[in-house]
Amino acid sequence: MNLRPLGDRVVIKKVEAEETTKSGIVLPGAAKEKPQIAEVIAVGPGGVVDGKEIQMQVKVGDKVIFSKYSGNEVKVDGEEYTILRQDDILAIVE
Amino acid sequence: MNLRPLGDRVVIKKVEAEETTKSGIVLPGAAKEKPQIAEVIAVGPGGVVDGKEIQMQVKVGDKVIFSKYSGNEVKVDGEEYTILRQDDILAIVE
Amino acid sequence: MNLRPLGDRVVIKKVEAEETTKSGIVLPGAAKEKPQIAEVIAVGPGGVVDGKEIQMQVKVGDKVIFSKYSGNEVKVDGEEYTILRQDDILAIVE
Amino acid sequence: MNLRPLGDRVVIKKVEAEETTKSGIVLPGAAKEKPQIAEVIAVGPGGVVDGKEIQMQVKVGDKVIFSKYSGNEVKVDGEEYTILRQDDILAIVE
Amino acid sequence: MNLRPLGDRVVIKKVEAEETTKSGIVLPGAAKEKPQIAEVIAVGPGGVVDGKEIQMQVKVGDKVIFSKYSGNEVKVDGEEYTILRQDDILAIVE
Amino acid sequence: MNLRPLGDRVVIKKVEAEETTKSGIVLPGAAKEKPQIAEVIAVGPGGVVDGKEIQMQVKVGDKVIFSKYSGNEVKVDGEEYTILRQDDILAIVE
Amino acid sequence: MNLRPLGDRVVIKKVEAEETTKSGIVLPGAAKEKPQIAEVIAVGPGGVVDGKEIQMQVKVGDKVIFSKYSGNEVKVDGEEYTILRQDDILAIVE
Repeated sequence: MNLRPLGDRVVIKKVEAEETTKSGIVLPGAAKEKPQIAEVIAVGPGGVVDGKEIQMQVKVGDKVIFSKYSGNEVKVDGEEYTILRQDDILAIVE
Repeated sequence: MNLRPLGDRVVIKKVEAEETTKSGIVLPGAAKEKPQIAEVIAVGPGGVVDGKEIQMQVKVGDKVIFSKYSGNEVKVDGEEYTILRQDDILAIVE
Repeated sequence: MNLRPLGDRVVIKKVEAEETTKSGIVLPGAAKEKPQIAEVIAVGPGGVVDGKEIQMQVKVGDKVIFSKYSGNEVKVDGEEYTILRQDDILAIVE
Repeated sequence: MNLRPLGDRVVIKKVEAEETTKSGIVLPGAAKEKPQIAEVIAVGPGGVVDGKEIQMQVKVGDKVIFSKYSGNEVKVDGEEYTILRQDDILAIVE
Repeated sequence: MNLRPLGDRVVIKKVEAEETTKSGIVLPGAAKEKPQIAEVIAVGPGGVVDGKEIQMQVKVGDKVIFSKYSGNEVKVDGEEYTILRQDDILAIVE
Repeated sequence: MNLRPLGDRVVIKKVEAEETTKSGIVLPGAAKEKPQIAEVIAVGPGGVVDGKEIQMQVKVGDKVIFSKYSGNEVKVDGEEYTILRQDDILAIVE
Repeated sequence: MNLRPLGDRVVIKKVEAEETTKSGIVLPGAAKEKPQIAEVIAVGPGGVVDGKEIQMQVKVGDKVIFSKYSGNEVKVDGEEYTILRQDDILAIVE
């Protein structure tokens, strides 16, 4: 079963805290809008969204940092995903 | 009796929880703006909505995930439907 | 006495609950922004509204579903009407 | 003494309740944003307002229905007027 | 000492209550956003303000009605002035 | 050490109260959004800001009146400055 | 590990308070939206962001002043960074 996001939306899967620690990335726990690291699972086609041409900047497999309270969480086939707009992705981690 | 949505609106019918479980999709119960899975019943013509050209990306029969608190609920001929804007649909489930 | 709505406004008259039941349409009572069914009585000319070209999609006699808290209620010649923007009409019932 | 409204503003004078009853128009007292009937006294020139071209649709002498809490009230030569934007006028009564 | 307002701003000086009464204009005291009468002292050049071309409609010496809570008050050489945007001026009194 | 403001931002330095009194400008103490007088220290280049072309209207050395709660305060080399957008400057004092 | 910001976002690293004092820049502690000094670590590509063409004005190594509550904080490889939009940068310190 696949999720095919619409417009400028992106499906991401949060990287587990353990894995996060291993990769050396630690997120502050008390930050009000604390960022999150995740892997991009699916990317919408972009195009005209709300009257504006959006080009997608992320691709499947990218590790990204995003704002925690953006997006919607959904569980598919027992896996939890987050669906958010590309604009809620802050940076790609390389 | 049919519902013909205007502009970029879409009529959807929520997939029952039992059916959801069978298809392997489980939605977290406590999420504040928890997404929902539904089937597309009718699609508006799109066109210029609020001064912006909208092209419809979903079609009748699509299974979609949407934000729970978006849209309006209505009961027609004993069936409950939700009418929302296409932009409140997050992804198509395939 | 007639009401001639301006711009993208539409004058509608709510269909009585009894009549609603006969037509098989029942609206949930507890929905926060519960939709309503009504008949279109008068339609504004559309045109440029707030800098955007609006084309009217509904016509006199259409049965429509709209969001309850949108629009203004007015009583003319003893009859109650609602005046709302076309964008507050969700769908046409056929 | 005259009031010459700027841009898309319109000067209206509320029709007295007695007169309202005679014309058969009664306004519900408990509506939260209850509409009002009034006569148009002066009409702004329209033109570009907030970057949008506005064409005036009402003329002096029109009877109009408007939203109660829109506009500003002012007393000139002992008479009370309301100055509002044309967009706050819902319909012309004929 | 002169005030030269920027963009679409206008410097006005409120007309004293006594003078107001003499001219026959009385403003209701309890109105929440009560209008005010004032004389235009200086007018900005207009031009492109917030991306929109603004043409100034008022000139020095005009008597105008404006919304009370709009604008900023300032005292220069012992005189109190209000600086507001032209769009907060409702009408010219003639 | 210099501050080079970005876009339509302007660095200003408040004129001391004593100096203010000498120049005859007194600001009302109780005004909710009380204006301030200041000298322009540095001016951003203008250009396209938030998608709109901004032309700078003030220059270094201008005395300006601005809204108190706009802008950010910063202390550089022991001197306090305010950095605000040009649109928060109400008028130039000449 | 690198952070590659998207669109008009910028990665900055706050300059320590000690260093701040040495450079002679002191920030007021009680300011509600108190500015911060930081060094630019990475700069997004700019381009069309939210339908507007953004040109990046800052470069890696710039010392900048920004509004404290803008942006998101993230810790990478034990170092704390802030990711914000270029528009939240007030000025470059030279």
